[in-house]
Amino acid sequence: MTLVEQLSATVGVKYVLRGDDRAAYLKDWRGQFCSDALAVVLPASTQEVAACVRLLADHNVGIVPQAGNTGLVGGSVATDGEVIINVSRLNAIRDVDVANNSMLIEAGVPLATARSVAAEHQRLFALDLSSAGSAQVGGNIATNAGGVNVLRYGTTRAQVLGLEVVLANGEVLALLEPLRKNTAGYDLKQLFIGSEGTLGLITAANMALFAQPSTATTYWVTASDTAQMCRFAGQLQARFGNLFSAMELVPQIALELALLHQASLQRPGTNNGAHLLLVADEVDPSDSMHELNQWLAEQLNLDLVVDVIRADSDRSADNLWAIRHAISDAQRQAGISIKHDIALPLSVIDLFITQCTTALEAFLPSIRIVSFGHLGDGNLHFNLSQPESMHAEAFREHAPALSQIVHDHVLRFGGTLCAEHGVGLAKRVLLDRQLDVRTRETMTAIKRALDPKGILNPGKVLAP
Amino acid sequence: MTLVEQLSATVGVKYVLRGDDRAAYLKDWRGQFCSDALAVVLPASTQEVAACVRLLADHNVGIVPQAGNTGLVGGSVATDGEVIINVSRLNAIRDVDVANNSMLIEAGVPLATARSVAAEHQRLFALDLSSAGSAQVGGNIATNAGGVNVLRYGTTRAQVLGLEVVLANGEVLALLEPLRKNTAGYDLKQLFIGSEGTLGLITAANMALFAQPSTATTYWVTASDTAQMCRFAGQLQARFGNLFSAMELVPQIALELALLHQASLQRPGTNNGAHLLLVADEVDPSDSMHELNQWLAEQLNLDLVVDVIRADSDRSADNLWAIRHAISDAQRQAGISIKHDIALPLSVIDLFITQCTTALEAFLPSIRIVSFGHLGDGNLHFNLSQPESMHAEAFREHAPALSQIVHDHVLRFGGTLCAEHGVGLAKRVLLDRQLDVRTRETMTAIKRALDPKGILNPGKVLAP
Repeated sequence: MTLVEQLSATVGVKYVLRGDDRAAYLKDWRGQFCSDALAVVLPASTQEVAACVRLLADHNVGIVPQAGNTGLVGGSVATDGEVIINVSRLNAIRDVDVANNSMLIEAGVPLATARSVAAEHQRLFALDLSSAGSAQVGGNIATNAGGVNVLRYGTTRAQVLGLEVVLANGEVLALLEPLRKNTAGYDLKQLFIGSEGTLGLITAANMALFAQPSTATTYWVTASDTAQMCRFAGQLQARFGNLFSAMELVPQIALELALLHQASLQRPGTNNGAHLLLVADEVDPSDSMHELNQWLAEQLNLDLVVDVIRADSDRSADNLWAIRHAISDAQRQAGISIKHDIALPLSVIDLFITQCTTALEAFLPSIRIVSFGHLGDGNLHFNLSQPESMHAEAFREHAPALSQIVHDHVLRFGGTLCAEHGVGLAKRVLLDRQLDVRTRETMTAIKRALDPKGILNPGKVLAP
Repeated sequence: MTLVEQLSATVGVKYVLRGDDRAAYLKDWRGQFCSDALAVVLPASTQEVAACVRLLADHNVGIVPQAGNTGLVGGSVATDGEVIINVSRLNAIRDVDVANNSMLIEAGVPLATARSVAAEHQRLFALDLSSAGSAQVGGNIATNAGGVNVLRYGTTRAQVLGLEVVLANGEVLALLEPLRKNTAGYDLKQLFIGSEGTLGLITAANMALFAQPSTATTYWVTASDTAQMCRFAGQLQARFGNLFSAMELVPQIALELALLHQASLQRPGTNNGAHLLLVADEVDPSDSMHELNQWLAEQLNLDLVVDVIRADSDRSADNLWAIRHAISDAQRQAGISIKHDIALPLSVIDLFITQCTTALEAFLPSIRIVSFGHLGDGNLHFNLSQPESMHAEAFREHAPALSQIVHDHVLRFGGTLCAEHGVGLAKRVLLDRQLDVRTRETMTAIKRALDPKGILNPGKVLAP
């Protein structure tokens, strides 16, 4: 039998795609990469995944693990005739353990489904992304997804209690116990979380569930500039700990772009400056918010911030979130956008923004810097928009030099060039720039130990 | 030059101990293991540690990393003429970044010092153990220490933002950036956390700091039995989330032993049953506790619990903690105690306790089961005390069979035999029992990749 026949015998002939029916699996989310796969295989169980991996390992054929295929860095595209193993059909909720606040789910469960199943059990599945409807949990774990709730609940890593992984040789590593404390040897699951399918193929996970917040109060805070806002965000966290589930920076230029390109949005308040979309979650439905409101009023008096608006209705809160979510689209409509997904220590973000802005404006005075995002955990989408006066092509030619300026500043301030989107294919060069040789060699040693043939997601994260 | 001369030239002759001055470093905390080392070396910096490791690697001499030497499983004893590298002199606080809520400290900083330095900056260093005065942060990280605050802040792993590690070849891996989001390749630091010095030698860490809770309210809750108490603990967490920093189970027998052997303790309340020492931390000094108090009153009415006492003074709270901390000592005074450091999903703990108790009493009707500890995160110290009517030697003979019964039940219910104390030398046999061959082989592959000569803490965690 040929390899394809053997795969068909394993998962059923209709689940081995060879023709145009592969299209949805070959296309990457942003359309940045050409992808071609020998076949797309859709197994239905961990055992089928394992059997496919064994077959492909025997034939020395590369394997691209794929879940919802919503990644932004080309981590799930096939570049060299690999076989894509898509886990969408592994979509069972194996167990909801309400008393243990945990849920055992398969890798192909859509994130939105995981969230709604948890909610049916009066629990919170904390991970949330704008692509929640399409993203699948296995992919979220493989990329250690961040999203909007990191401030309070941590990245995906912090929510994984147990993991089931198919290794490069087709053996199944079952590390699924939903325990909060376990020191029985190395915590192997940590290796697979965030390694983008290069060390193993995630088939299921036992995820922590949380108490559902009973109230969410949404604020729109304005400070005179970003430096002031960074100080404010730091003080908020030192004073109120993890009361907040979101702390999103919206600079004036991002607000104006959003309002310009989406007519349905309402302008919140009249003050200009740097804005913060702030959400305080309370598990306990008491009046503990009183203290926060009082403190916010004090900051107004101290002139640390110039305005605090509390959303007085769901509609008002929705409008604030709609502004936040409109920024990316508005940027696209405003021309070319050179994107940077970076994170820095909160203590240096204002200095980074000031110095990097100065350097960028010295290079290209008409540049429009749209630096927004998850300020609370130090993660900015530091995007550069095409000047209004400049043609797209001319701006595109400046892209490498502009990115170089941003990267130099990020690294000088101890930040990362890959904050929450991962490395995939798109950022391998950045990884080489950011990491010293020892760190890269150690990663390579781990890769070699777990995937000696180099068949798992070849060429992703680490250069071959 | 001999190896010892080379080590002396590296760290200074007075910091290479060869005689009786090694005693404090050879003795393990519980006195369970005979330890002998070629030398005890006390470097003062990461560079000195790296130079020592290079020398020892060149000579193929085993290295036992050691910090505060307070471990309970023999993880920092020398068994075969290794050289102990003790990091106590690496005790600098390199940086406190208040605005980023992080603190860069060296491996030899005592845990209590880390806590007090953070407090001087109005921040909380969340890790806390009863051995905080002697334990050092490097050891806490190497063992992924648990302690009393896991419920709210996670184990040590969750608090490590960055790590500096000396590898087996003497190279320094600097992964110290204090970032909340970073997807730049594999998260290598996770490998070293909890691997007990078998993969690398931790020299410094960047630790997360937290908002200081402004109030701590301490409760003593009594339920009719442990099964009821487990249900109560589960409901508490589902309802109030991570409001609690401690949720410690104290069964009636543990209370009686503590009161019997420590005369200064006051009996809290008059009800018998299973007790819970509960601490609710509030960062926000408002009256959000009101809701909790109301809910607790409702549970009393519903008969889920039979008594709720709120500590009305610091002295009263201190008495409750003194009872909790007196249990181990009281058990020692009551005779031989066979200890088990186990964790289970919260949903099966009551069933585990019921069935395991039945099996143990069937085997030895007079057995005294003292099952106490961190109920909130599923971690019990399931200790078996010598029957009052039985001689020590007779009881000791039953130990293997009794432990076997406990282990069988833990594994049957999906728990771990190594919850928070690690593996070291003491629990290697248990690890072999708990983990399947694939998991052990994967751990061995990682060990081989990072320490090909096998010189880092030989024989610990994994059998050679």
